[in-house]
Parts: sequence; structure tokens; C-alpha cells
Amino acid sequence: MSNPKTILEAFTWRYATQKFDTSKKLSDEQLNTLLEVIRLSPSSFGLQPWKFIVVRNPELRVKLRGAGYDQSKITDASHLIIFAVKKNLDDKTVDTYIQSVAQVRGVAFETLKGYGDMIKQFLSSMSQEAKMEWAARQAYIALGVLITAGAVEGIDVGPMEGFDPKKFDEILGLEQMGLETKVIVAVGFRSDDDFPASLTKVRFPKEEVIIEMN
Amino acid sequence: MSNPKTILEAFTWRYATQKFDTSKKLSDEQLNTLLEVIRLSPSSFGLQPWKFIVVRNPELRVKLRGAGYDQSKITDASHLIIFAVKKNLDDKTVDTYIQSVAQVRGVAFETLKGYGDMIKQFLSSMSQEAKMEWAARQAYIALGVLITAGAVEGIDVGPMEGFDPKKFDEILGLEQMGLETKVIVAVGFRSDDDFPASLTKVRFPKEEVIIEMN
Repeated sequence: MSNPKTILEAFTWRYATQKFDTSKKLSDEQLNTLLEVIRLSPSSFGLQPWKFIVVRNPELRVKLRGAGYDQSKITDASHLIIFAVKKNLDDKTVDTYIQSVAQVRGVAFETLKGYGDMIKQFLSSMSQEAKMEWAARQAYIALGVLITAGAVEGIDVGPMEGFDPKKFDEILGLEQMGLETKVIVAVGFRSDDDFPASLTKVRFPKEEVIIEMN
Repeated sequence: MSNPKTILEAFTWRYATQKFDTSKKLSDEQLNTLLEVIRLSPSSFGLQPWKFIVVRNPELRVKLRGAGYDQSKITDASHLIIFAVKKNLDDKTVDTYIQSVAQVRGVAFETLKGYGDMIKQFLSSMSQEAKMEWAARQAYIALGVLITAGAVEGIDVGPMEGFDPKKFDEILGLEQMGLETKVIVAVGFRSDDDFPASLTKVRFPKEEVIIEMN
């Protein structure tokens, strides 16, 4: 197994890992690469309506497994990453973001007012539920990024939608941080006897999935 | 510019491209790599509730630009890819998928009945609106995959949420195909004078985005 892989090698190698090798842990460098890549993930307007919670703590993970249909990857993978979104997406969120843009780019806050106003208008046009869905979609961009980065780096990734998000928020204390869990991901290394690894990947053929209008 | 890049090089190099070089087109190999990678994108249950419409046709793209806030990347990028989801996610969708699993893996349809029933139960528990949101999230995984693959391969990607999805469906005839546009992506190569390319990327610092529970 040589790293990094080309993108197509990576996507042939990867699969939704179910059973992780409990003895294999990500190196600090591997973990940092994954975290840096999700931190750099793009989002609509650049707003980054998310936080990523990285759980290594074994006791916490046992509790989370209880809220995640007892899936072994929750406890057995090297790390568990929770993709959470910010519940309060309001004018203040936008101002904080615009301030960070102004600071990083060395421009006056006022010069970005029009951009900020556009984002504020976009957000205020949505119900809270619609905002959370929009934020969840952004988190799923980061999920796609993490899946791809893991594949390229030879790190196994097991994304999960099957869990109780409210219980996750409770166990992790996310409610008080103004966050909501949207999707979770186990990262680490496949067990030698993970059955799905041996199965042929099932995807619809190109002619059924891709429509070309030339 | 050497390809492929490491994942962190790729994420430093990429940005949401606004202005594409109209003279630069993806090679067949580059386009095929991107399409193959999105075809191989993972989705919940492996259901692939999507189709990807690749538009090169210039007249169509002028029309789409009219439904996309006149963003130049819609017409000027090498290709435009529409990420659409299937409107009918029902028992028949699941049976078609399970049949493809049975065929690819050489097992009897009946042995997969339990898995199919679980997916059917999941889908039937949701309203049509919730199903479309769930499907959109899956499409956003593929979006994250495409963004990452483009970055690694040195291909510029400009994702867009700002467009009229109903008009896109009309112009492309997606309604009749049972599809709904969720997000669109211009792919190609940045123009030398694309102003945002020169700006420092703005992301919240690690300590604000990543929470570690060790």
C-alpha cells in the first residue's frame, strides 16, 4: 500500500469500512492531515457553519455507541469525528465571518459590507429548519472531502447516518455549545477480516448515472 | 503545476473559481476521471439517488446562465455538471438497486431481502420533502468528492448554489426524467486574471473549528 494514491486508485481501494482494527491508530501526522483538510473544506459563501468534534476518549465512545445502534466502528476505529453545525446562523454569525475575512485579507470591514448583507439576506430568508438543512449540506461537502482525502492517504473511513443525533448532542454537551450533530465518521484502519472489504463495489453503470448534453 | 498533488497541496491550491479561461478545455481523460470519481462516490445504503448531467452544449449553457444570476462560469468553464436527485425514491428504486447488488455480487435477490426491506422502511418513514433533503445531502457528498478530486488533479472547480433549480429542470428537461437539480458545478481551468485566486483563503483557525475530546 503506497501513499498517496491517484484519485482513481483511491476510489477503487476505499469502501465504507465496517470493522476497524482496534490496534491500529492514526499517526499525529495522519490525523492532522485529515483535520486540516476538513478545516479547509469549502462551504457556501465561505461561512463554515460547522464544528468538527474529534473523539478519542474510550468511555465517551462507549456511550456514543449506545446511541448509534451499537455499531462497533464507533468504539473501535482510531478516532470518531462528529460533524456538527451551528444552530444560530444569524447576523452575528455573518459579522464574525466578515470580520475574519477583513482581518485575513487586511481590508476594512466596511468594504465587505455588501457581501455580508447578501449573506444576511440569504440566511434571514430561511426558516430555522431550512437553515439547518442548508448547514447540513455544507457539512456533507466536508464529508465528501474527508472520504476522498482518507482514500488518497490510505486511511479507512466509515461514515454513519444511523445514530440518534439528539442523544449524541446530549452525551457530547453540544446543545450548550449551540451545535447539532449531522453526520459522524469513524476513521482508522480496516480489520483484516472486515467482510465488506472483499465484496465488489456496486455502482450503477456510467450510462445510467451520467447524462451528457454536448 | 504537477499532477497529482498531495491532498494538502491540493487544498492550498484550490479555491472557488469564479472566472474560467474559455480557451482551456478538459481532456477526455480529465473529464473521465472526474466523472468516474463522482460515479464511484459513496452514498447512504449505497443507493446512489442521483444523476449527473454534463453540459458542454453552448446554447444550452447560455440559457442556463440566464437562470443562474448570469454567472460567467456557467458558460465559460470547460464543462458544467448538474447534480440532480431522483424524485421517486420508493420501493421500486430499492428493488432496482438490490437487483444491481445481487447481479454484481452474484448472489440471489432473496438473500438481500432484509437489507432491501430496511432501506424501504427508512425511505417510507420520510415525507417527500425530507427524502429530497436526504438525497440532496448524498449529492453533496459527491460534490465534496468532485471538489477534492479536481484539486488533486489540478482541475478548477466552481460550485454554485445560486441559481433557479426549477428553471434548470425546465431547460434541461429533468422534470420528465424524474429528476431535480440540487447543486451545479463548473469545471475547467482558472483564468489568469481571476481576482479571487490572488486572495488569501479565509478559514477559522483550528482551535475554533476542531474540538478534541481525548
